Amino acid sequence: MSTPSFPARTSTAAIELGTELQPKFDANGLIPCITTDYATNEVLMFAFMNAESLAHTLRTKRAAYWSRSRGKLWIKGEESGNVQLVKELRVDCDQDVILLKVENAGGAACHNGYESCFYRKLADGADADKPASLKLEFAAERVFDPATVYRKH
Amino acid sequence: MSTPSFPARTSTAAIELGTELQPKFDANGLIPCITTDYATNEVLMFAFMNAESLAHTLRTKRAAYWSRSRGKLWIKGEESGNVQLVKELRVDCDQDVILLKVENAGGAACHNGYESCFYRKLADGADADKPASLKLEFAAERVFDPATVYRKH
Repeated sequence: MSTPSFPARTSTAAIELGTELQPKFDANGLIPCITTDYATNEVLMFAFMNAESLAHTLRTKRAAYWSRSRGKLWIKGEESGNVQLVKELRVDCDQDVILLKVENAGGAACHNGYESCFYRKLADGADADKPASLKLEFAAERVFDPATVYRKH
Repeated sequence: MSTPSFPARTSTAAIELGTELQPKFDANGLIPCITTDYATNEVLMFAFMNAESLAHTLRTKRAAYWSRSRGKLWIKGEESGNVQLVKELRVDCDQDVILLKVENAGGAACHNGYESCFYRKLADGADADKPASLKLEFAAERVFDPATVYRKH
């Protein structure tokens, strides 16, 4: 299927306070996308979309991104089974960021086997002037073992 | 104050499953940052940080970003009073995205007067192949009137 053109961006007023979707794709044709769990609001992951992946997401109601490392459409869960069923799509004020609220069907959004990619937090005592103090601690348990889910290539 | 160097990135294993903060700044020296309300988990905004703003955030426990449009350190709430008190800082699996959980002290994170920048959602009936169907609807009420908060320049 051909990739549709999304509406052109018009005025700041229309973009920020209007009711037409006018997404901004950057010089590389990409728009950042934040994906959260619609039930808990936890941020699951962050990725980029191009027009093709945004259109695919709207058509299928399943999250699709653009894989910058592989240079191809990335249908989330295609390999792992951890599909994301889109419940709501939001845009930010200047429409250069997308927010998807999804049902995290497989229970894990991260390729490392965690529900969310944000499974580590900065520990207390962090001091930007003392690199040795910048320690992370795990804030989640694994949902699956990646070795059992992804096929060896 | 000089901007500290954050620890260098080492191996994929250390970056993804280790306990040292090794943030990835892109070719422009920036790292994306998602900011959520620590109480509700709602995504408030999305912005970029450079090393200086990340260090400033760690030192002051108040969110600071890098304003790409103004090319300067952006201490959130400096003008509007809507400061963000940092309760937790997370990184994603490959440490190229930051997640801040904050107390949204002033009640509004968006310059348009909304609690969150994501105050509009795609209405039902969206069809990527029919641009006219891509309608947004407001999903939030304004917390303040921007005209009364920002000084006229």
